[in-house]
Amino acid sequence: MEVDERRLRENMLTNGEFGAVASEGHGRTVLTGSEADKRAREHLVTKMHGLDMAVRVDVVGNIVGRWTPDSADPGAAPVAAGSHLDSVPEGGIFDGLLGIYGALEAVRAIQESDRKPEHPLEVVSFTEEEGTRFGVGLLGSSVATGQRNTDEALSLTDDSGTTLETHLESIGFRGENRLDASAWDAWLELHPEQSTQLENAGYQAGVVSAITGLRRYGVEFGGEANHAGGVRMGDRSDAFVAASTFVTDINRAARDVVADGHDFAVATVGSAAVEPNASNVVPRRVELGLDIRDTNTETIKELVRRAQQSLARIEQEYGVETQLTKRHMIDPAEMSDRCRGAIEAAGTEHGVETLAVRSGGGHDTMNVARVTDAGLLFTPSQDGISHSPAEWTDWEDCATCTRMLAEALADLAGAGH
Amino acid sequence: MEVDERRLRENMLTNGEFGAVASEGHGRTVLTGSEADKRAREHLVTKMHGLDMAVRVDVVGNIVGRWTPDSADPGAAPVAAGSHLDSVPEGGIFDGLLGIYGALEAVRAIQESDRKPEHPLEVVSFTEEEGTRFGVGLLGSSVATGQRNTDEALSLTDDSGTTLETHLESIGFRGENRLDASAWDAWLELHPEQSTQLENAGYQAGVVSAITGLRRYGVEFGGEANHAGGVRMGDRSDAFVAASTFVTDINRAARDVVADGHDFAVATVGSAAVEPNASNVVPRRVELGLDIRDTNTETIKELVRRAQQSLARIEQEYGVETQLTKRHMIDPAEMSDRCRGAIEAAGTEHGVETLAVRSGGGHDTMNVARVTDAGLLFTPSQDGISHSPAEWTDWEDCATCTRMLAEALADLAGAGH
Repeated sequence: MEVDERRLRENMLTNGEFGAVASEGHGRTVLTGSEADKRAREHLVTKMHGLDMAVRVDVVGNIVGRWTPDSADPGAAPVAAGSHLDSVPEGGIFDGLLGIYGALEAVRAIQESDRKPEHPLEVVSFTEEEGTRFGVGLLGSSVATGQRNTDEALSLTDDSGTTLETHLESIGFRGENRLDASAWDAWLELHPEQSTQLENAGYQAGVVSAITGLRRYGVEFGGEANHAGGVRMGDRSDAFVAASTFVTDINRAARDVVADGHDFAVATVGSAAVEPNASNVVPRRVELGLDIRDTNTETIKELVRRAQQSLARIEQEYGVETQLTKRHMIDPAEMSDRCRGAIEAAGTEHGVETLAVRSGGGHDTMNVARVTDAGLLFTPSQDGISHSPAEWTDWEDCATCTRMLAEALADLAGAGH
Repeated sequence: MEVDERRLRENMLTNGEFGAVASEGHGRTVLTGSEADKRAREHLVTKMHGLDMAVRVDVVGNIVGRWTPDSADPGAAPVAAGSHLDSVPEGGIFDGLLGIYGALEAVRAIQESDRKPEHPLEVVSFTEEEGTRFGVGLLGSSVATGQRNTDEALSLTDDSGTTLETHLESIGFRGENRLDASAWDAWLELHPEQSTQLENAGYQAGVVSAITGLRRYGVEFGGEANHAGGVRMGDRSDAFVAASTFVTDINRAARDVVADGHDFAVATVGSAAVEPNASNVVPRRVELGLDIRDTNTETIKELVRRAQQSLARIEQEYGVETQLTKRHMIDPAEMSDRCRGAIEAAGTEHGVETLAVRSGGGHDTMNVARVTDAGLLFTPSQDGISHSPAEWTDWEDCATCTRMLAEALADLAGAGH
C-alpha cells in the first residue's frame, strides 16, 4: 500500500494555516464555530468530494465522508477512521489533523491499490473534541455514540452564552440526523502519542491496548480552627494534618497497586485549599482534588476503596469529619483485539515494529470503543510536547503510520491480499 | 493591703470609653496615635498626677509615672509595673488597661498602707503593644529594653505611610530620651489570661512560669509538574506528597516531644500554597508555613532538628528539593524566681490559691524579662475570649489580683511587714 508523504504533508500544512497564530513552529487556534473552524471544515468537505465521497453533516456538526467502492455491498456496515479539526488555543497541527488527513490519504491509497473492500469506508471529523469552547471534551463522539443527548449538546454555551447550535448554524455546519457510530463495523484513529513512550523506546508506531479511565473527587476535611500558640497538640482537630495523612495514604495505595502489576495506575492529589491558611492558625478546613486513573476499572475501584478506608481511619484518629465527593468519571476503554490485530498485521506487512502502549489522555476513540470495535494507532511525538505550536511528529513517521492505517482499514474492510 | 474594687472598675470603664465601639459588651478601638489614644494617654497622666507621681514621656511615647516615697532612696532602682493602653480593632477593655489601672490602684493601696518601700515605684504604659497600626508588636518595650533602635521605631509607618514619629507628635506624646527598663530592680505585669487554664481549674490567679517563644519557617518543596494521566507513579517527583509527608512527620515529632513531658510544645503547619494547584497536574512546588512554640528553647531547637531530619529523608525518598527558611523568631522568656515568689507569697498573704501557668501569647513582659527580673500575673478570662468586645474578667477577680499585685510590689520594693 503506497501513501504520498508529500501530499499528506501539504494537506496538513494547508489545514494548519486555518486559525494560524504567530509563533515558532506551527501553531493554530481553531475553536468550534469560529471562522477558522468554518474554513477547515469547508476545506475538508472539498477534499472528501475530491475522493468521490458522499458527504453528510450531522446535527452536531460531525462531518462524514463515505466512499462506497464497487466491490462493496452498499448496505454493509462501514469501516470508519478519523479524528477532529478543532484545536486548543495555540495548539499544534498534528493533534486531530493527522487523524483526519491520514484517514483521507489512506482511503486514497486503497482507491489507488488493487484491493477490493467489501465495506464502505467512512472518514469522520468529530465536533469539539478538545472541549475548549463549550467545556465538554469528546463532544461530537459522545453524541454519535448515544452517550449524550442531541438537544443537551446543542444547548451547551460558550463563555459569552452563545449555544453550540447557534455557532454551528452561523458557520453552516448544523446538519441533520445523528451520526450513529454503533452502525460502524470497526473504527480506527491515528493520533500523535502526546507522550514519550515511543520516542524513548525508539519505535515508529504504537498500538494502543487501552485508554485510561479516570475518576476525580473532591476530598474535604473539617476540623477546628485554633490559635497555633493557644491549643496543645492533644487538644487539636487539625484538618491539614488529616489531609496530609490522606495524601500519603493514597500515594502509598497507588504504589501498592503498581507493585501488584498495574503499571499505569496513578493517584494524584494536585490541588489543596486550606482554611484559614494562616501560619499561626490550626487549619479548620482543607479540600483536596483527587485524580485516579488506570486502564482497568477494577484497579480504579480498588484505589477508591483504599481512599475510603484511609478516610475512615483518619476520622477515628484525628477527630475530623471527611467527605469524598465524585466530580467526574470516565470509564477506561479497551481497544478491540480485532482492531489491534489489524494494526499489528499492517506493521508486519510494512516492516514496521510496533510497541503496545496505553493512552493516558482521552480521545474520541474512547467513546467509539463503547459501541463498536475500535483501535488507536500512535505516532511518536517529539519530546512528548502537545497542545503547543512546538508539537511535532516527523513527516516520515506520519507517512509510515498512514500506510499502516490504510493497510489496517483495507484488512478490516475485507480487502485482504 | 486594701484595694478599692469600685474605683478600679470605674477607672477601667472610663478608659474603656475612649475609642468605644457600638457592640455587645465593652468594645474599644485604640490605635496608637489616634484621638482615642490621645485621650486615654491624657487621662492616664492626670490620674498619675493625682497619685503624686512625676510623669515623663519617652521618645517613642512610653509613659512613666514615678512615685518616690519618703521611705525610699530616690537613687534606688525603681520597682515597676504596667501594661499598655492601645487595643486591637474592636478589642476588649481588660487587655492592657487592667495592667495599667491595676498598677495605679496598687500604688495607691501602698500609699494608703503603713508600708515603707525602699525603692521608688513606677507605673508604665508601653506604646503599641498590639502591633495593630505599625505591624510590630511589643514595640515600646522593645525600645525600652534596647532590642530595637529608637530611630527605626520612629520611622515605622502605618498603612497610609505616616510614621510613628508623626503620629506621636500629632497627639503630643513624642517625648525625649529613652525609657531604660534595665534600670528597674523588678517588673510585674497584671493581665487577663486570654485562655481557659484558670477558669477550667477554678483558680482566681495564675503565676506565669514562662512565656512561650516561637520560630516561624517557610518550608519549600520543589518537584516536577507532570500531567496526572501521563506520568507513572515511579517516575514522579511530586512536591505535594513530599510536603504532606513533612506535615505528618512534624506533627508526630511534636507529639513525641509532648510525650517526653514538654506539655506545651506545639508545631503547626497552618498554611500551604500548591503550584500549579490543578487536580490533574502533579504539583511542581509547595510552600508550607511552619510555626513551632514552646516555653523551652531546647525543645524548640529539637523540633527544628526533627524538621531538618524529615526534610533530609524526604529529599532522598521523593527526589524533591527542600528548603527551610527562618521567617520570625522570638525566644521564650522565663519569669524570674524572685518575681514569681513575690506573687505567690502575695497570694498566700491574701488567702488566694495560685496556679502556675504558661503564657501562649506574647506580652511586653517578654522583652522586660531579658533585662531585669520580671513576673506576670494572670486573672481568669471568661471562656478564654480575647481581642473581642466579649472579653471579660469578673471585677472581683480583677480586685483580688490587684491586691496581690500591690502586695508583691511592696514586697519587691522592700516594704515587708
